[in-house]
Amino acid sequence: MTKHLFAAFLLATAAPAFAQPVQPEVAKLRDAALKDDYAWDILEGLTTEVGQRMAGTEAEARARDWAVRKLKALGFANVRVEPFDMPVWTRGAESAQILAPFPQKLMITALGNSASTGPQGITGEVVGFNSEAEFEAAPDEAVRGKIVFVSHAMPRTQDGSGYGFFGGPRRQGPTVASRKGALAIVVRSIGTDYHRNPHAGVQAFAEGVKPIPAGALSIPDAEQLQRILKRGKPVTMNLTLVSQVTQGSSGNVIAEVPGRDPKAPPILVGGHLDSWDLGTGAIDDAAGVAIAAASAKRIMDAGRPLRTIRVVWFGAEEVGLFGGLDYRAKHGKEPHHAIVESDFGAGRVWKVDSKLGKEREAEARALQRALEPLGIVPGSIEEADGSDIGPMIADGVPAVGLSQDGTHYFDLHHTPDDTLDKVDPEELRQNVAAWTGMLAVLSGGIEPEPKRGKRR
Amino acid sequence: MTKHLFAAFLLATAAPAFAQPVQPEVAKLRDAALKDDYAWDILEGLTTEVGQRMAGTEAEARARDWAVRKLKALGFANVRVEPFDMPVWTRGAESAQILAPFPQKLMITALGNSASTGPQGITGEVVGFNSEAEFEAAPDEAVRGKIVFVSHAMPRTQDGSGYGFFGGPRRQGPTVASRKGALAIVVRSIGTDYHRNPHAGVQAFAEGVKPIPAGALSIPDAEQLQRILKRGKPVTMNLTLVSQVTQGSSGNVIAEVPGRDPKAPPILVGGHLDSWDLGTGAIDDAAGVAIAAASAKRIMDAGRPLRTIRVVWFGAEEVGLFGGLDYRAKHGKEPHHAIVESDFGAGRVWKVDSKLGKEREAEARALQRALEPLGIVPGSIEEADGSDIGPMIADGVPAVGLSQDGTHYFDLHHTPDDTLDKVDPEELRQNVAAWTGMLAVLSGGIEPEPKRGKRR
Repeated sequence: MTKHLFAAFLLATAAPAFAQPVQPEVAKLRDAALKDDYAWDILEGLTTEVGQRMAGTEAEARARDWAVRKLKALGFANVRVEPFDMPVWTRGAESAQILAPFPQKLMITALGNSASTGPQGITGEVVGFNSEAEFEAAPDEAVRGKIVFVSHAMPRTQDGSGYGFFGGPRRQGPTVASRKGALAIVVRSIGTDYHRNPHAGVQAFAEGVKPIPAGALSIPDAEQLQRILKRGKPVTMNLTLVSQVTQGSSGNVIAEVPGRDPKAPPILVGGHLDSWDLGTGAIDDAAGVAIAAASAKRIMDAGRPLRTIRVVWFGAEEVGLFGGLDYRAKHGKEPHHAIVESDFGAGRVWKVDSKLGKEREAEARALQRALEPLGIVPGSIEEADGSDIGPMIADGVPAVGLSQDGTHYFDLHHTPDDTLDKVDPEELRQNVAAWTGMLAVLSGGIEPEPKRGKRR
Repeated sequence: MTKHLFAAFLLATAAPAFAQPVQPEVAKLRDAALKDDYAWDILEGLTTEVGQRMAGTEAEARARDWAVRKLKALGFANVRVEPFDMPVWTRGAESAQILAPFPQKLMITALGNSASTGPQGITGEVVGFNSEAEFEAAPDEAVRGKIVFVSHAMPRTQDGSGYGFFGGPRRQGPTVASRKGALAIVVRSIGTDYHRNPHAGVQAFAEGVKPIPAGALSIPDAEQLQRILKRGKPVTMNLTLVSQVTQGSSGNVIAEVPGRDPKAPPILVGGHLDSWDLGTGAIDDAAGVAIAAASAKRIMDAGRPLRTIRVVWFGAEEVGLFGGLDYRAKHGKEPHHAIVESDFGAGRVWKVDSKLGKEREAEARALQRALEPLGIVPGSIEEADGSDIGPMIADGVPAVGLSQDGTHYFDLHHTPDDTLDKVDPEELRQNVAAWTGMLAVLSGGIEPEPKRGKRR
């Protein structure tokens, strides 16, 4: 019996806990959301009318202006920006060129916080490693003064666990390379596709470590470099990764569906407004902000929830969770009924986790039951995760996690290919249905508004 | 009854013509080629050790040097280069940027023979059309002084017919735009994928027409531009497409498996050595030169064919069939037993056509029967095609056409994504088996060489 079959057996024997039916109004709201157009409208608008919105840039500021206009137009209350300051890293010209033994260009992009090579670039011999572990085990002499190349074997996984495990070359690689005295580091993109589009992503040099140039090759180019290195001749590369750091600002955009009970702790639903600069940030994370806002809007259309639903479109997530940390600093001590974030693309929701606390198990079970008809597996009721909301979850704030299918997420993540055409409208709608069902369960009951328009 | 079912009915009633069995030595050579490694070795070597090899450039010259070394190492006789002069167009810096109403970058590449904008680029208002026909019907006033955008609706097709029909915006578009007084033209890439990789490709301004800048947007970018245009506000674009034209040279690389009968007309098998400059030209056309040479090498390994097999790796195909025309000028009047070219990727062969002449129907039928076990449909015996060899086929030279499955060919064609990883080694082997079977049929019988190595 596998672990999962055994779990299914336990569920079956625990049948009485599942006998409580889903409330008809919850089912109705959930299923109506399968025809949702709000999320697509937000997603299409943001990616078309703003496009990329790199954290701290004027493009992200335009995205905040767009967001405020859009959320007001949708009828949300208390629409506002909570600004914060931050260092802003931006890229300039980028190229990588094998000079010998087989002259050719490779497709590269700088990792966040890479040092700048200056416009003339740097030239060095390349030394290659098949994994982060192999690289870390290498003696400093093998690396000193050279351009290090580090590969990995990241597979596609539904839950994204491949990214966590195989992301080492990007996350630790640059710091390790600098400590070993390397001239620069290039890594195989932390991705799962075979297109000539390198995957950007943040890395942070450890305290006291001197920044060096750090870039990611597209996967076809990383494999090309490996084939060239295998020939056994010295490989020389010219690397140009221009970048700059300035002081700037970002902000969280906040909007609310006011609850009937102003004292009841709100439900936070969110995603992040910023994106990497190479694509238009459709799956990362225009889809997330669209799903969160569309589900809140659907509740608003149905009437007044008992609890306030607070929509937060976080700023500057990609480069270090600045928005999430700013919200936590300003609101983390206020009670929240639950916090939920969508930041794993637009693939269908396949599992619901929650961490609402032992005393709220009935609510957690009701949430699971409400989502089952959408083909969503009941997951843990003792854990949930999120990026911007991660630190608050760690603080003990109650949270829900609606896991999206990420099998193909890392084909596109942080690449120029993260564009609107990659989103399946039907999968997006299933997300909105899941989120709407969740809000219908958590919001404490929705009462129809008096129809003011029909009064005389 | 469909057309194809009716054809099958006719075949069945024509059974006697199909009774003749395939010669055992043909079947043996064909099937042994399903384990071929020669083609992969050539393909991997050329794309790794040379990479892109744009016609007329020093990279293409390096490819010729590589080819001569490789063909000699494989044991071919009479390995030589036949050089020719040509104008050489090369690209410089390229970018496209929407300035208003929604500032953002779009991914673009210049089409061959595009005029240069100079490094500072040009700026103009964009006017869009959904098809070449719609564009051609537009009055000059709608276009004059503007940047024209032309889209199309190219579908995936197995036989590549979508490319022929929907390629109008690239082939005629620039000439039409110049005649109407447009500032520049950008087209939706003539391709079928959704990656941020524009498709390059040649176009030629008609005689007397002033060259203007002409570029192709990636398909996601073309659709983004259409969405922006649909908003109805004036769209301003800055377009930088730097290029230059110089006088240069290219050449055909020729190698032979000498036949037992020096007077018997040779069989020409080929592909083209040059590639576009964005990828490494794996499917276009390292695969083709690899398939042609590998099948000739397999015949060489088996013994001496009656007829000479001449391998031709044409130069400068992409930019105007210069290699094919040079070969025709020098050798077109010499008799050829058959000419065959592989230039449609590395997808499996699904159909065999031939045009050997009425008096050689038995040979054409024998060829069909020899390839049936590989899952290859018997096609026409009255037509065949090819790119470099196209003009010679039109002249009446006997030819064979082994049609490859091109369903996904235009996902990659002329893009940065045309790299080694896109080739399926098993499909490549099926090609070599088809070509080896073909050569076994056409070559007039192979006699084992005396085993010199075992003599004392």
